[in-house]
Amino acid sequence: RFGYFGLDKPEVVRLLLCNVSGCLTDGRVLISVSGEEMVSVNTRDTMGIRMLQREGVEVILISSSEDLLTKALADNLSQRTGCEVRQLGKDIQCEVKAMMDDKDLDWKEVAYMGNDAPDVDCLNLAGLSAVPQDAPVVAINAAKYSCHSAAGLGAVREFSEHILLLKKKAKSQMEQDRIHRNTF
Amino acid sequence: RFGYFGLDKPEVVRLLLCNVSGCLTDGRVLISVSGEEMVSVNTRDTMGIRMLQREGVEVILISSSEDLLTKALADNLSQRTGCEVRQLGKDIQCEVKAMMDDKDLDWKEVAYMGNDAPDVDCLNLAGLSAVPQDAPVVAINAAKYSCHSAAGLGAVREFSEHILLLKKKAKSQMEQDRIHRNTF
Amino acid sequence: RFGYFGLDKPEVVRLLLCNVSGCLTDGRVLISVSGEEMVSVNTRDTMGIRMLQREGVEVILISSSEDLLTKALADNLSQRTGCEVRQLGKDIQCEVKAMMDDKDLDWKEVAYMGNDAPDVDCLNLAGLSAVPQDAPVVAINAAKYSCHSAAGLGAVREFSEHILLLKKKAKSQMEQDRIHRNTF
Amino acid sequence: RFGYFGLDKPEVVRLLLCNVSGCLTDGRVLISVSGEEMVSVNTRDTMGIRMLQREGVEVILISSSEDLLTKALADNLSQRTGCEVRQLGKDIQCEVKAMMDDKDLDWKEVAYMGNDAPDVDCLNLAGLSAVPQDAPVVAINAAKYSCHSAAGLGAVREFSEHILLLKKKAKSQMEQDRIHRNTF
Repeated sequence: RFGYFGLDKPEVVRLLLCNVSGCLTDGRVLISVSGEEMVSVNTRDTMGIRMLQREGVEVILISSSEDLLTKALADNLSQRTGCEVRQLGKDIQCEVKAMMDDKDLDWKEVAYMGNDAPDVDCLNLAGLSAVPQDAPVVAINAAKYSCHSAAGLGAVREFSEHILLLKKKAKSQMEQDRIHRNTF
Repeated sequence: RFGYFGLDKPEVVRLLLCNVSGCLTDGRVLISVSGEEMVSVNTRDTMGIRMLQREGVEVILISSSEDLLTKALADNLSQRTGCEVRQLGKDIQCEVKAMMDDKDLDWKEVAYMGNDAPDVDCLNLAGLSAVPQDAPVVAINAAKYSCHSAAGLGAVREFSEHILLLKKKAKSQMEQDRIHRNTF
Repeated sequence: RFGYFGLDKPEVVRLLLCNVSGCLTDGRVLISVSGEEMVSVNTRDTMGIRMLQREGVEVILISSSEDLLTKALADNLSQRTGCEVRQLGKDIQCEVKAMMDDKDLDWKEVAYMGNDAPDVDCLNLAGLSAVPQDAPVVAINAAKYSCHSAAGLGAVREFSEHILLLKKKAKSQMEQDRIHRNTF
Repeated sequence: RFGYFGLDKPEVVRLLLCNVSGCLTDGRVLISVSGEEMVSVNTRDTMGIRMLQREGVEVILISSSEDLLTKALADNLSQRTGCEVRQLGKDIQCEVKAMMDDKDLDWKEVAYMGNDAPDVDCLNLAGLSAVPQDAPVVAINAAKYSCHSAAGLGAVREFSEHILLLKKKAKSQMEQDRIHRNTF
């Protein structure tokens, strides 16, 4: 058949940027009488991250606050996943762009997961983007994919599986195209 | 067109009073073997409070118990949001009225969020009022707005967005009225 | 009208017996690396208990395990509600009967809340009885009332309101009967 | 009637193997500022395990990570249930087979509960197998029974009741067969 030659190369995600707060955590902070604070992460989500890493997708976690709890969470997550955790300022998009230039990546090769207003620009620009099921409307409207799972309850795992599925589809499409090109 | 001149000035909320217990917390208290207690708050809710503050709405948190856990929670919340946390006695309405007189505010300019029987009077009187989705019937019946989100899971964030939307609408209405007044 | 004279005196609950485990707690036990354990209770439920106490219904909490966590929980609950917490053995029904004899109460005057197989006898015998929404089928089948709220999420509060409503109805029925008796 | 003589002996479960992570826990890990970690288990699930033990079904918990938190969890669970907790490596199926040979058991006599990709082989092979309601699709597809309850919220209790029901059915079937054999 004709018509396959001019197809764009299918997009392949090489980097997932995932906002820790509101994607890997459910937003709850436990506060004790003695002043101790706790947050929760889900092993389902950290397993999703490791699935991506095994398939060659780099994962960088991003965090935008600087308190002690966020620091402890970042340490714990980088131990669990081996991911780098980057502390970003207010202008997420600008710092993400710099990161991408460093790695020589295009927006089409980047997947972004966020959950609120500060993530909107990156959700719009990234080739693939997602929000947890319980994200505010402003973020849902900007994301390409809206998870069925809520934050801290498997949303990152779900998006990871979505990315891997699209990667698989893209690969099989490239294979088909190659066959067609050689056949006709 | 005619008929706009006599309209009431649209109500604009200048102060949100929010009961900590059952609005910012989900009512759960964790108890440890060693006697330590913990409660949880949601960063989504504290972000909602900061959204209101940025738009010029003052937020005061009110609390009606006096144990150590409530004290720790109040400290934590005032650090997270910059809000004042007021310890009120049994007659919430009376103390709220005094607070309003101090600030020269009318009930029409006050939004109130509560979740149980002691909040009913204020829920009835305030220009805008809300309860979390899981509030008892007695409180739901008194509130003007019933959140889709439960306590500790974004109810305060949802009410904050509702207030900001009404504020925006009121502003655009005032703008329209001004244009009409100048045109005819 | 005729026919009212022979009516049974409407049942009035004078005592609520409530199993702590699985009614006031949600069954979760948090376990820390250092061996600390935590359970949660809900202030909504403890408020329900105080509503009953204010209306003259005695509330006794019953507990059937003896570990340190249960001890800490019992202490905390009796501080929050002023209730007595009784440690019962395997044969709950027998010990409850002894308690009722002490207080000169009949099963018709007792409300019982439980959530599993060991509670079945008391759920069957008590004048009023309830289980949380998430109780096993064996307990649901024995209870007169099945809560819409799950354990640790307001089931005790819901049953308390149900008891108070029936108490109110019984009172107004007695009042009506008295009027009828005097009128005809 | 004819035709019963050739019937297979109904399958009777003698051993339940249950993966701790994602079956007895809900996947959440609480992280504190000071670096402490916590996970939760549900007394409903540990009660389910004891129900099996009382009916003569051995229960072995299996665990595949080796950090301090898993160690603390294993200690706590073996105290609560009296179960052995086995630390398994990556090839779960192989180690489970060895365990079964030791105990002279066949796959038909083994029930397996797991919740993710590494459990798929055992879910396929075991005579009875189940996953919690919130398991990934890959595990759901391999399991014979898919629980209505989620992990950490009673899934193990539900599967335990399912096993006991089938055991009861098998016993009454064997009884019927015996009667038929003696009658004709």
